[in-house]
Amino acid sequence: MASAIALSWRGRGRTAPNPNVGCVIVRDGRVLSRGWTQPGGRPHAEAMALEGVEATGADVYVTLEPCAHESNRGPACSDLLVDARPARVIIAARDPDPRTNGKGIDRLRAGGMEVIEDMLAEDARRAMAGFFMRQQKGRPHVTLKLATSLDGQVALPDGSSQWITGPEARAHAHIERAMADMIVAGRRTVEADSPTLNVRIEGLGNRAPSRAVLTSDVSKFAQLRLQAETPAWRHLESPEAIANMEGVDHVLVEGGAGAAAAFIAAGLVDRLLLYRAPILIGTGLSALGDIGLARLEDAHDQWQLIETRMLGKDRLEVYERA
Amino acid sequence: MASAIALSWRGRGRTAPNPNVGCVIVRDGRVLSRGWTQPGGRPHAEAMALEGVEATGADVYVTLEPCAHESNRGPACSDLLVDARPARVIIAARDPDPRTNGKGIDRLRAGGMEVIEDMLAEDARRAMAGFFMRQQKGRPHVTLKLATSLDGQVALPDGSSQWITGPEARAHAHIERAMADMIVAGRRTVEADSPTLNVRIEGLGNRAPSRAVLTSDVSKFAQLRLQAETPAWRHLESPEAIANMEGVDHVLVEGGAGAAAAFIAAGLVDRLLLYRAPILIGTGLSALGDIGLARLEDAHDQWQLIETRMLGKDRLEVYERA
Repeated sequence: MASAIALSWRGRGRTAPNPNVGCVIVRDGRVLSRGWTQPGGRPHAEAMALEGVEATGADVYVTLEPCAHESNRGPACSDLLVDARPARVIIAARDPDPRTNGKGIDRLRAGGMEVIEDMLAEDARRAMAGFFMRQQKGRPHVTLKLATSLDGQVALPDGSSQWITGPEARAHAHIERAMADMIVAGRRTVEADSPTLNVRIEGLGNRAPSRAVLTSDVSKFAQLRLQAETPAWRHLESPEAIANMEGVDHVLVEGGAGAAAAFIAAGLVDRLLLYRAPILIGTGLSALGDIGLARLEDAHDQWQLIETRMLGKDRLEVYERA
Repeated sequence: MASAIALSWRGRGRTAPNPNVGCVIVRDGRVLSRGWTQPGGRPHAEAMALEGVEATGADVYVTLEPCAHESNRGPACSDLLVDARPARVIIAARDPDPRTNGKGIDRLRAGGMEVIEDMLAEDARRAMAGFFMRQQKGRPHVTLKLATSLDGQVALPDGSSQWITGPEARAHAHIERAMADMIVAGRRTVEADSPTLNVRIEGLGNRAPSRAVLTSDVSKFAQLRLQAETPAWRHLESPEAIANMEGVDHVLVEGGAGAAAAFIAAGLVDRLLLYRAPILIGTGLSALGDIGLARLEDAHDQWQLIETRMLGKDRLEVYERA
């Protein structure tokens, strides 16, 4: 199942509104095939894994309950599995989509196979966080990236910020971009830095998340000089407006301090990527603007550390909402 | 030797100008006795460990080369060891004090025992950092403590900072106080918060590091209302003035942003204790004031991470000069 979850991450940022599922088929301890939801959302992971494989009697590991609803883009995965006749289907997480929720499992059991649920469910939901957030709260999953010195500064007083973190941390941040459906920056950051917000990793250059500028003022958006036109930059008038963007299940907010603070203040940050360089800056520009915090006690018990590791000389910390 | 080094930490902050040495005597795999430099600097660790013990043929682990110079406060430890006739003396680090440097080892070898050097030398020097700094650079070893949010803030805009970190981190910071000869705070911090800067840990209440206020203006120092008079607060007119303070080998700088920045700017911080709470503050007070950084590249390659661990919900990181 851990392998299937790793495969599911491959699709993250490219499958919305479909979930980025991963699937591994095993018989007698050997992997017969693997699949993951393809760009655009089809084929589904199970269809890819079953393609050209004789799976009778095998074990199928899949990160999300196979779908029970047919579409004009292909048959339901639970029907494909019933036809393939594996011995067991092992599922990480049940599908929250009401068209499937439980029905996929019912159909598999009716088809005569054993079904096991809830294997590494939390890890699977984390990998498909955007799909779950969209299903459960009607909005995308939002990651906020901050790259700071040890004392929490993101630039010198004159705005210079190249570079705080090293090449390993910056490469990691580009992989995070590749796994987003949309990247957001604030208007002042776009004005000052003219960022491209593209994916500069060899082999991932074909990933082109859409990009948006956060500004309440549409005329200011129209005046911006934006790098590269494909895909076109979008205008985001408020953090809440991400809920209305079609095909966007994973959002990455890249700064600056104003945009980051606006998303925090709106309660719309689900995951925090903190890249920290082992340097001190002193007087400079802080990572966050005003988040509307009135009392220190209100700041507590909001975040928990999920992962930490070194990236070259820098340290990555990943926090999620507690 | 690791046990001897752990013992040496017990004396840290209480033995200056003597080094805080640790000593363990072992025979046939059993510990015969232990010793560490006592408050005020005497007895030395070796004298304490040898007291009342028959050490003939034993192994003596000691974190610093035994002294070769006699004093009116007691005999030289190398002579005590020659009289005790252990089989081997294992030494972590050679004494940089020119009165002993190598002479203690010579005397032991002349006395017929085997001497092994350089066992866990780096860890031993770290435990006795103040003594080594005083011997080699003529000034104390300085630790800077910062307690911040994830975004590097130490208080809300109104100055409120109680509490950012939790009880475990605050207790750890009190243990750090107990291992300092002197604690320094800036004038504005003392004016605003009236800190006691004492050690509030059960069993360590008898530790009373001296305290100093950093301000270039002696008349402002005279006007301060200071908490508790024993021992008396000192006036520190500049970071560099720590070099002249007798009996001070380990300094802990506790803030605020101005004092911290002054020590950083002066190049006088050797060790950085970073307590970080999993909270976001946004607009607030930053941990450091102006450290005189002109170019981002000058900030790099100054610090390396030595240790990191959780303290309750908070995370401690310890950095040393690279």
